[in-house]
Amino acid sequence: MPKQTYFNLPQKKRETIVDGAKQAFARQHYDRVTIDSIVACAGIPKGSFYQYFTGKDDLYSHMFANIGTEKYQLLIQEFDSGPHGTFSEAILVLMRRASEFDGQDSVMVMLKQRFLQECPQQVKQQIMQRMVPESMELFAHVIRWFVEIGEFRQDFPIGQAAYMLTASVLMLDTYPLENGEDHRQAFRNMVDMLAAGLRLRS
Amino acid sequence: MPKQTYFNLPQKKRETIVDGAKQAFARQHYDRVTIDSIVACAGIPKGSFYQYFTGKDDLYSHMFANIGTEKYQLLIQEFDSGPHGTFSEAILVLMRRASEFDGQDSVMVMLKQRFLQECPQQVKQQIMQRMVPESMELFAHVIRWFVEIGEFRQDFPIGQAAYMLTASVLMLDTYPLENGEDHRQAFRNMVDMLAAGLRLRS
Repeated sequence: MPKQTYFNLPQKKRETIVDGAKQAFARQHYDRVTIDSIVACAGIPKGSFYQYFTGKDDLYSHMFANIGTEKYQLLIQEFDSGPHGTFSEAILVLMRRASEFDGQDSVMVMLKQRFLQECPQQVKQQIMQRMVPESMELFAHVIRWFVEIGEFRQDFPIGQAAYMLTASVLMLDTYPLENGEDHRQAFRNMVDMLAAGLRLRS
Repeated sequence: MPKQTYFNLPQKKRETIVDGAKQAFARQHYDRVTIDSIVACAGIPKGSFYQYFTGKDDLYSHMFANIGTEKYQLLIQEFDSGPHGTFSEAILVLMRRASEFDGQDSVMVMLKQRFLQECPQQVKQQIMQRMVPESMELFAHVIRWFVEIGEFRQDFPIGQAAYMLTASVLMLDTYPLENGEDHRQAFRNMVDMLAAGLRLRS
């Protein structure tokens, strides 16, 4: 976690720092990103860096937490504003929007790729500890809506259904595709199956 | 993947090498394990190492693949030999056995801990690409049994149900526990929910 000095900064300033960090981490291998390159991109004196963060990992985790929060807030808004078809359709629209968010520009594309390939495990674990609950909150939000309209049962643990969807999405690149199948289709089948468990018996 | 020279070795010799690798990788941080320390533990000349493996990562992935295969074969045998209660009970018994396998001695405990904390991401991804399908095969095996005895529907994709369980287990340490809940309980609720989706409607 960044230090209190950082959170005391005006929001604009914090955004500039995070944007600079995105540039620095998108440009080079995680191991080769230096505090010098970060402060150059963020336009802050090197001396302030350590007043704000405990180190490179700290800023990196904070940057990803920010990206995650922005993404999940956006997706929740999208869901709330749109008409929704079935549960599976709603989830798949959100997944498409999430991909669009991840691929919105070359910086985001590089950040994601480097996160998957270069980020040290302990840093990744820290980031996951924050990303998993946010993703779960999104799925729980959608499930709750289908409970409210009376399509899903009220007597099951929403958090755990949300967790299964989260884990399945986050590991989807390890899913062994069969002939002709793609990840999107495979995931759709998973969502359908879960929905079958959640649906009210007629 | 190890080279063909390695697979041409007698099985006993291959086991000695893998056992030596376990000692070497359990003892030190992944980054600090040297080829010298591996050949010392495995009792092979350094010259042969590169006739068998492309490098440290290669042997490490192979070693984990071996551990995984042994574990999942054992679990499948366990399932086949025992009486099974409900689907959830069967899955939870297997998860307990898997924990026992992972914690069978100090070498295994250290290997798992170092894998989670120290193994570089790209090596981890390679290992996951092999571990996920084996874990899925175990869950699919159990699900198929419940289909055969007529308790589960025949018309859903078993592979994808098996994948959801696998992803949920593999990421369980990121699941945010609520008051009084433990991981085992949370996972049990997930299994129950999935089973509700798979069960034949009465």
